[in-house]
Amino acid sequence: MRRRPPERLAQQHHQRPGVAPFTERTPRVIAARRLQRRRERDESRLFLAEGPQAVREAIAADAVKELFATAEAVERHPDLTKDATLVTDGAIAALAETVAPQGLVAVCHQPGVRLQDALAKAPRLVAVLAEIRDPGNAGTILRTADAAGAKAVVFAGDAVDPYNGKCVRASAGSVFHTDLVRDADPAATVESLKASGLTVLAATGYGDTDLDDLADTGGLARPTAWLFGSEAHGLPDDLLAAADHRVRVPLHGRAESLNLAAAAAVCLYASARALRRPAAGRP
Amino acid sequence: MRRRPPERLAQQHHQRPGVAPFTERTPRVIAARRLQRRRERDESRLFLAEGPQAVREAIAADAVKELFATAEAVERHPDLTKDATLVTDGAIAALAETVAPQGLVAVCHQPGVRLQDALAKAPRLVAVLAEIRDPGNAGTILRTADAAGAKAVVFAGDAVDPYNGKCVRASAGSVFHTDLVRDADPAATVESLKASGLTVLAATGYGDTDLDDLADTGGLARPTAWLFGSEAHGLPDDLLAAADHRVRVPLHGRAESLNLAAAAAVCLYASARALRRPAAGRP
Repeated sequence: MRRRPPERLAQQHHQRPGVAPFTERTPRVIAARRLQRRRERDESRLFLAEGPQAVREAIAADAVKELFATAEAVERHPDLTKDATLVTDGAIAALAETVAPQGLVAVCHQPGVRLQDALAKAPRLVAVLAEIRDPGNAGTILRTADAAGAKAVVFAGDAVDPYNGKCVRASAGSVFHTDLVRDADPAATVESLKASGLTVLAATGYGDTDLDDLADTGGLARPTAWLFGSEAHGLPDDLLAAADHRVRVPLHGRAESLNLAAAAAVCLYASARALRRPAAGRP
Repeated sequence: MRRRPPERLAQQHHQRPGVAPFTERTPRVIAARRLQRRRERDESRLFLAEGPQAVREAIAADAVKELFATAEAVERHPDLTKDATLVTDGAIAALAETVAPQGLVAVCHQPGVRLQDALAKAPRLVAVLAEIRDPGNAGTILRTADAAGAKAVVFAGDAVDPYNGKCVRASAGSVFHTDLVRDADPAATVESLKASGLTVLAATGYGDTDLDDLADTGGLARPTAWLFGSEAHGLPDDLLAAADHRVRVPLHGRAESLNLAAAAAVCLYASARALRRPAAGRP
């Protein structure tokens, strides 16, 4: 593969001519690497996104503060790397949490919004992740919520940081797509959702309302916020009580439960379908 | 907590009186541990299931060949451990792949069946995992398929071994609940499914048929087999071509795709709903 000489790359990418690519020991790379820790992310309101897909989404969301790229990545992704800072493979390896970030890691502004601002846009579908600690689960539900058309996703209570690297990766770019609210108080969130006219549905294996019954009776064909709790502990009692309905996904076979992300997918898509085709789902 | 004297336990559990609990160096434990490797599982048609939930399901399925339990596990789960072989904590640690198997690991017979035998029971919902390599994904889809009422799950082509420890754990017991077919030839499987009167639907992000449209027109209200391909590569072209429809889950937001297990959950539950409530979902 043809490679442009490093010197010209460096000029293009806002490093002084003749400056060698940054390494894992360059202060700006060291500073960026600290964003792997939650405390640093919280203080700076920055986070890391790695790989071409996430970087593309970050650029589209105008969230990139600084993009680090290897010469090979600049060669392969000229569209993404116009303003990149050239770094060595070693620097990327230090910045990235995955084995194959394909030479790209971006320092991004956290795109979070306040709950009131998200609700002011009158979203018809909202997902609330209450005290979900597993970043893979949280990121997957964020991605599914985005796919189902949820305009706002709320991380409430003692939940994982949505800007945790694993969560960002599991979201496959959706961290940049939705109005993302973090550090929300769970009970206050439910009150705000209700005050905004949203029906609040708590997803729980022990719910007294069957999801299909709710769909059949038109109960999903109105603006809805879904509450999802942790796989280990479910939703706290006060949130279950505060919801308009406690809804269970029907279990037709012999499985005792669904995993959290699968249950969330079924619930969110049942809402998406009912919101778009109110006639469908009525007997 | 009260503990019964080890000697009496040993008598109850088919070890000679006075024999100390088996350790990680006891030949039977060493032999069982080899089942962590696929080749050993394939040759012996045995596999390992760990933790009380999986062991309970294995007992219910009459699949247990030998159950290893610590004295503490015998104390805590007397209902499960009547025929257990008493072992040390070290033996359980050697046999288990998780940190906290709660003192129980069972050697189980692989409950697999042949495709023809599974189809002879005229299942109305079948899931086919074609060349899915990730054991966590495969186990999660197996669990979801069971929950949605699928009576048969087929592992086709170069798929992960369904009796892989991680797959067994992700299935949360469903490995014992469904008719499980493995090592199936993908193309021959599709032919057999069609010959049995099942509509074959290929789940693909590039499908020309929208899942909601199919539901609206009654296309899901008949016995159905879903084909799911790997997250990295999707379904092979010949299987896409052989299916009756290539179906995409609608993407309402800005996500480019769903993850595999979430897409499978939406598809399988759309079928479950249509099969049980044929009137629902028609406009």
